[in-house]
Amino acid sequence: MFRTHTCGELRLSDSGNNVTLAGWVQRNREMGGLTFIDLRDRYGITQLVFNMEVNPDLCKEARELGREFVIQATGRVAERSNKNPTIPTGDIEIRVEKLEVLNPSQIPPFTIEDHTDGGEEQRMRYRYLDLRRNENKKNLLLRHKMAIESRNYLASKDFIEIETPYLIKSTPEGARDFVVPSRMNEGQFYALPQSPQTFKQLLMVAGYDRYYQIVRCFRDEDLRADRQPEFTQIDCEMSFVDRDDILNTFEGLAKHLFHSVLGMDVTDFPRMPYEEAMKLYGSDKPDIRFGMTITELNSLMKGKGFPVFDQAELIVGITAEGCAEYTRKQLDELTDFVRRPQVGATGLVYVKYNPDGSIKSSVDKFYTPEDLKPVLEVFQAHPGDLVLILAGDADKTRSALGGLRLEMGKRLNLIDPKVFKPLWVIDFPLLEWDEETQRFYAKHHPFTAPKQEDIPQLMFGDAKKVRANAYDLVINGVEIGGGSVRIHDKALQQLMFQKLGFTDEEAANQFGFLMNAFEYGAPPHGGIAFGFDRWVTIFGGGNSIRDFIAFPKNNAGRDVMIDSPSEISEEQKKELGIK
Amino acid sequence: MFRTHTCGELRLSDSGNNVTLAGWVQRNREMGGLTFIDLRDRYGITQLVFNMEVNPDLCKEARELGREFVIQATGRVAERSNKNPTIPTGDIEIRVEKLEVLNPSQIPPFTIEDHTDGGEEQRMRYRYLDLRRNENKKNLLLRHKMAIESRNYLASKDFIEIETPYLIKSTPEGARDFVVPSRMNEGQFYALPQSPQTFKQLLMVAGYDRYYQIVRCFRDEDLRADRQPEFTQIDCEMSFVDRDDILNTFEGLAKHLFHSVLGMDVTDFPRMPYEEAMKLYGSDKPDIRFGMTITELNSLMKGKGFPVFDQAELIVGITAEGCAEYTRKQLDELTDFVRRPQVGATGLVYVKYNPDGSIKSSVDKFYTPEDLKPVLEVFQAHPGDLVLILAGDADKTRSALGGLRLEMGKRLNLIDPKVFKPLWVIDFPLLEWDEETQRFYAKHHPFTAPKQEDIPQLMFGDAKKVRANAYDLVINGVEIGGGSVRIHDKALQQLMFQKLGFTDEEAANQFGFLMNAFEYGAPPHGGIAFGFDRWVTIFGGGNSIRDFIAFPKNNAGRDVMIDSPSEISEEQKKELGIK
Repeated sequence: MFRTHTCGELRLSDSGNNVTLAGWVQRNREMGGLTFIDLRDRYGITQLVFNMEVNPDLCKEARELGREFVIQATGRVAERSNKNPTIPTGDIEIRVEKLEVLNPSQIPPFTIEDHTDGGEEQRMRYRYLDLRRNENKKNLLLRHKMAIESRNYLASKDFIEIETPYLIKSTPEGARDFVVPSRMNEGQFYALPQSPQTFKQLLMVAGYDRYYQIVRCFRDEDLRADRQPEFTQIDCEMSFVDRDDILNTFEGLAKHLFHSVLGMDVTDFPRMPYEEAMKLYGSDKPDIRFGMTITELNSLMKGKGFPVFDQAELIVGITAEGCAEYTRKQLDELTDFVRRPQVGATGLVYVKYNPDGSIKSSVDKFYTPEDLKPVLEVFQAHPGDLVLILAGDADKTRSALGGLRLEMGKRLNLIDPKVFKPLWVIDFPLLEWDEETQRFYAKHHPFTAPKQEDIPQLMFGDAKKVRANAYDLVINGVEIGGGSVRIHDKALQQLMFQKLGFTDEEAANQFGFLMNAFEYGAPPHGGIAFGFDRWVTIFGGGNSIRDFIAFPKNNAGRDVMIDSPSEISEEQKKELGIK
Repeated sequence: MFRTHTCGELRLSDSGNNVTLAGWVQRNREMGGLTFIDLRDRYGITQLVFNMEVNPDLCKEARELGREFVIQATGRVAERSNKNPTIPTGDIEIRVEKLEVLNPSQIPPFTIEDHTDGGEEQRMRYRYLDLRRNENKKNLLLRHKMAIESRNYLASKDFIEIETPYLIKSTPEGARDFVVPSRMNEGQFYALPQSPQTFKQLLMVAGYDRYYQIVRCFRDEDLRADRQPEFTQIDCEMSFVDRDDILNTFEGLAKHLFHSVLGMDVTDFPRMPYEEAMKLYGSDKPDIRFGMTITELNSLMKGKGFPVFDQAELIVGITAEGCAEYTRKQLDELTDFVRRPQVGATGLVYVKYNPDGSIKSSVDKFYTPEDLKPVLEVFQAHPGDLVLILAGDADKTRSALGGLRLEMGKRLNLIDPKVFKPLWVIDFPLLEWDEETQRFYAKHHPFTAPKQEDIPQLMFGDAKKVRANAYDLVINGVEIGGGSVRIHDKALQQLMFQKLGFTDEEAANQFGFLMNAFEYGAPPHGGIAFGFDRWVTIFGGGNSIRDFIAFPKNNAGRDVMIDSPSEISEEQKKELGIK
């Protein structure tokens, strides 16, 4: 061992002891005849002191030490005259008697400080230096802790971790696969898993009863803001359970993590049908840390001669409390916001309920104050409030207003970053119609069971209206996990494939092994998968999953530190039979 | 929940309680007016009983249940008249009052029994049925337990689990990479990691101090007996440590696993230099559960006119106690054994020390009993013993005799499968000379440090003789892990690359990011990686890692259950820009 203690553990009670520490030079200061060095390791920072009068040679050596040099120092623990209450070792310092440079360092390209001067690109290129910064260290330690606690909880509930293969088979259904050419089977390819879905279902067929895995998954998508080509899931499946058993079990996991990782007791996990979430929040992952729910205004605002509203499928609004005095500029900003392509509205109507009781709207031409009064009433608005209204195609308008609601929540500081509000969104639609290909797609995946009471609807009625026995766990407006009760009955599975427009042959080709397995005694089962990167990010109060991944890729799917992807040799390509 | 209890938990004390169980029909027997069903789940087997007199309809229904049907049964727990002491639930049975078939089953293609009638190919194709068998279940549960206990131990020693990327960069050094074409960066490829070696070293540079990960690794090798294209490692790295700190830490891990998983206290972990292992056992992974060590005979057997021995670089032998009465046939078998290409000797010489004290050898033409006496003496042979001798090129002959030693250990039942004998093999050679390419290769990898005292030898002497600061953990003749102290000094790393015949440019190209990282304060560090599949296999007393992997691939790298690898669509290939 190069040390007797870490840089985070010495206290006043160690005074007088001879110790050896090793770590990185965080700072090097001269004060009169004294030289102080802050020595850093993963565990903390300890102050080293060198005295020019006592040992001038050693002190001169110490003065030469640059930032990020790796050193080993031996000396006696002493009480500091000038204590630092902000760090746990702040009561003591080491009076160094022996010093060794274990490795020098070039001057780092950016400062290793909480507020660094390094830009994103630079920090990603030197990720091994960026990772030295406290914030990143804190994030990775949090991730470790959450993984450990997840495993502990799941093991305590009789879940067993089973590793499923990474070299699997490409299936055209769903997102794009990464593929791996096989040298031993020329012209053939493995695919990297988008999730271990079929394997975990096979494990249920195999009788493993409760399975989990913290597992890497891969999706070759065009990367948006917060996506990575490889990401980590906590993947789980259970047998002989119905939906509520599953929700209760994983509510338990979430409670355990809140408690053991954040020291918080979060106990309320309301359950909200998808339809209600869309209606009230314009989102299938509502942030319920604040209200400002959506109200429908069709009956109150149609038929008054305003063509936009008269032609709209849906008119909906929210109230922003105390915003009646918003300026023209502020209102224009909001209009610009809703017109962004990501939000997608064409315009914004406002109704100001002025503090003096008067009413002023952007559609005064079409609506008298008498017309608007019932609108304010339905919102239970007070003088001083502002009502914001969007209209148009029902789905798009709801979702746009959901976006505006979040924006207003931020602007009005209604969203407390220290509060966690989980929510189960349930009863998702089973199928989504795709106009382009003129067929249904499974909203979750083709093995998701419809709700029992909706099976007749699926067989004989309007398939669009069928609800799935599926659920998402949402925390603070972020979907951190989703799952479903699965189909375990062959006839129902065949019906489902029919609805998805698969011929028997196509179904057999793509999912034959799972269909076969279902003929040999498949138990009722269901499960869930959590986006581990996202969950850690939410718990860490971060904005980007990239800050919670040790070696993330950039938006072009590149690792700029190792410079990957990269060319491979002609010989490699030849061996693989690819060009 | 479809059940109130599992099939493994009911006891006599539950008698009289009303319970619901769910599981698979293991067996269905009629005895007079009674029908007995063994109901199986992951947790055990419980006997259900149906009485034709009490409820004929239900009993008839029960008689229709085939093997592997999934059923749910409700009834009262009752004491059995005919107890079965071999299972934990053997004192009770359930008098069923209500029965539901949750899913029927076709007749499985092989029996789900400990001794199944299914062949390997069949069982792999229906792996989800094979996995229902006790033996496989036991193996996967053992694997789960070992993973949990490994994590617990490592976490208790301040190791943090950090996930490293799976989509990395291909490096020509070492085994063949699997590559992944990048759609977003046409013509470029990611590679799947053969190990997270460089990333864990970067994490040490980043100050994480103690890292571990249970992680999948990939190697595109021609598969031999017990290799898989994807395999799992317990991958670890530590900073500010020397070799003995590392060995002690992971000896601790092994002891913890022996204790917590097998309930055994294994405390003796001898350390043996590579050279000694080769000399005494003809192997760098000796099975030290038995002796029969190798003795050199050059001085005793050369110069007696036997040309084979006179021309041999090395003459070595072992004693097989009590085998002097081996027949011609038995000796011929041994000769055939050593002549196998995997063993590689050209012939076998024996010396029988007969029970009556006389000496008989296969080289009596060249050696008198007086010549052979000293040979027997050097082996401390007793009347009744048999000495077996090989000669030829030193390295090959040692290794061939090592093979013969293991064979004799098996034949003589000297190897106790219930005993575990770990061993650290240390001081491996740093470099291996390759005749074909006329260059050195790193025996471990290019970042392995030479032993401090051998650095002058590396700089100025015979590089072949330089020992690495590297070590393997061997249990019962199986290498279950290996690692080394790493180079953290830039100059030494450059020297190493020189010896490996890299130009500066090649080194920078392939390992530039690691070389760069070493310039910014790399701490002294080292680590180890354990082959998790092998370790579990050893602990489980198995012969093949395949039996300890949920969904293994066959010798052609194929998963016959999902039929992978497979063709992908032309469209996929076009998108990836490959042919």
